[in-house]
Amino acid sequence: MEDLEKQLAEMKSRLDTLSNKSPQNKISLIVFSGDLDKALAAFVIASGAVAMGMEAVMFFTFWGTPLLRAKGKEAGDKDPMSKMFGAMLPTGARDAKLSKMNMGGMGTAMMKSLMKKKNVASLEEFLALAEELGVRIFICEMSMDLMGFKREEMIEYEHLTYGGVAGFLAEAQESKIQLFI
Amino acid sequence: MEDLEKQLAEMKSRLDTLSNKSPQNKISLIVFSGDLDKALAAFVIASGAVAMGMEAVMFFTFWGTPLLRAKGKEAGDKDPMSKMFGAMLPTGARDAKLSKMNMGGMGTAMMKSLMKKKNVASLEEFLALAEELGVRIFICEMSMDLMGFKREEMIEYEHLTYGGVAGFLAEAQESKIQLFI
Amino acid sequence: MEDLEKQLAEMKSRLDTLSNKSPQNKISLIVFSGDLDKALAAFVIASGAVAMGMEAVMFFTFWGTPLLRAKGKEAGDKDPMSKMFGAMLPTGARDAKLSKMNMGGMGTAMMKSLMKKKNVASLEEFLALAEELGVRIFICEMSMDLMGFKREEMIEYEHLTYGGVAGFLAEAQESKIQLFI
Repeated sequence: MEDLEKQLAEMKSRLDTLSNKSPQNKISLIVFSGDLDKALAAFVIASGAVAMGMEAVMFFTFWGTPLLRAKGKEAGDKDPMSKMFGAMLPTGARDAKLSKMNMGGMGTAMMKSLMKKKNVASLEEFLALAEELGVRIFICEMSMDLMGFKREEMIEYEHLTYGGVAGFLAEAQESKIQLFI
Repeated sequence: MEDLEKQLAEMKSRLDTLSNKSPQNKISLIVFSGDLDKALAAFVIASGAVAMGMEAVMFFTFWGTPLLRAKGKEAGDKDPMSKMFGAMLPTGARDAKLSKMNMGGMGTAMMKSLMKKKNVASLEEFLALAEELGVRIFICEMSMDLMGFKREEMIEYEHLTYGGVAGFLAEAQESKIQLFI
Repeated sequence: MEDLEKQLAEMKSRLDTLSNKSPQNKISLIVFSGDLDKALAAFVIASGAVAMGMEAVMFFTFWGTPLLRAKGKEAGDKDPMSKMFGAMLPTGARDAKLSKMNMGGMGTAMMKSLMKKKNVASLEEFLALAEELGVRIFICEMSMDLMGFKREEMIEYEHLTYGGVAGFLAEAQESKIQLFI
């Protein structure tokens, strides 16, 4: 009898461990691309996930980072290379271009006009929606450092964290779905 | 004694819940890209997964969508923008091009000839194989709407569903592996 | 009493099965891209994962394959197409270029100089670090075959395996995180 109780207790503890380990109801997205089409896909997935009761976390890294710069907040004292990157990369979601068929901006303009006509939210609107839905956003510090972006140049967003790969991995380990976009 | 039985029953129910929650033997692939090389990778992975006893689901979205158009079935009454998209995007898997080294089509032709020589199936053959293997395919309705594709223009495929992000997320939540290609 | 013991034994076996099935502490990365920026992201994630106590496996396929060629080890007897691929694709990680803003090599050189200045390891250094950390690397045999690469042309790496999609899927099934890069 005592032995049975001991066995039961042991199994209970194993069950507890397993329950905690099992992937939670969360999705983690790496937004590596700065392209309009891919960023759009990322936001559609993230907001769709929240609509389904999941938690969503987005990690903006490399080309995705400049999508989160704020217009008109460029920092002054930058070295020449940072200035050059700053000028060549998009400033905010509104500047994003299609990965294909951009055709000097004409394809991107066409796609944006189509999105409006078909009632698909713009990237800026999706960003505002994500904030409202409580989607958490990480900005990769290594990318910011490489591209010479400073924190005061980035957008204001309620659920924003500056972090590195460890932050992503910690979230991803607890997520049911992880995508590199 | 009674208490032990009660504990046992409780643990059994927890085990059942855990078993149902644990990721199933399924893979979900988002085929966002319309490039020959990436679509090829997606089909190699999907058919490989079925060969290993897994279930495979592919979600064709954005640039991946035109890969599933059927030749010679273009709908007539389209607005000018939809006509333009229709003309510029590939019609079916046979039209897919390499993401790099396309070189005006020469690189893609070279790769296709190499695939034939090395007995690697073509994209069209992989699509037929996928149908035979029971790979389920979703086509993204938002992408079709944006690009002006109609259902009657798409391929016939036994396991085809038209759907949105909710459809993807429902499958992905139950999958062990999810990839964005 | 006997019945209780039987029930306990059955639940124990179910627990064992669940424990084995539950995703392990491993990450599987498909490195499909041969771009400097994406390969860099892959190595940052893989080495970060090991630093967090995870096991990391990288699958180099398609454009990622030539990143693992060794300099000065090109095989002699090749058909014309393999020679052409051999000449046009990068030979090793040092040859990798940015996916965007390469600008005839100027953008890539700029990024490399920035990486040095900001103390971000180069791709070659990350590869050496990965070997030290015990990151396992798979090279896709189908890709090598298509591109005409031979085993004697590839780098020496302690934890190297030549394999196919089945190898990837077996690792991915046991992984908590899987990304297609």
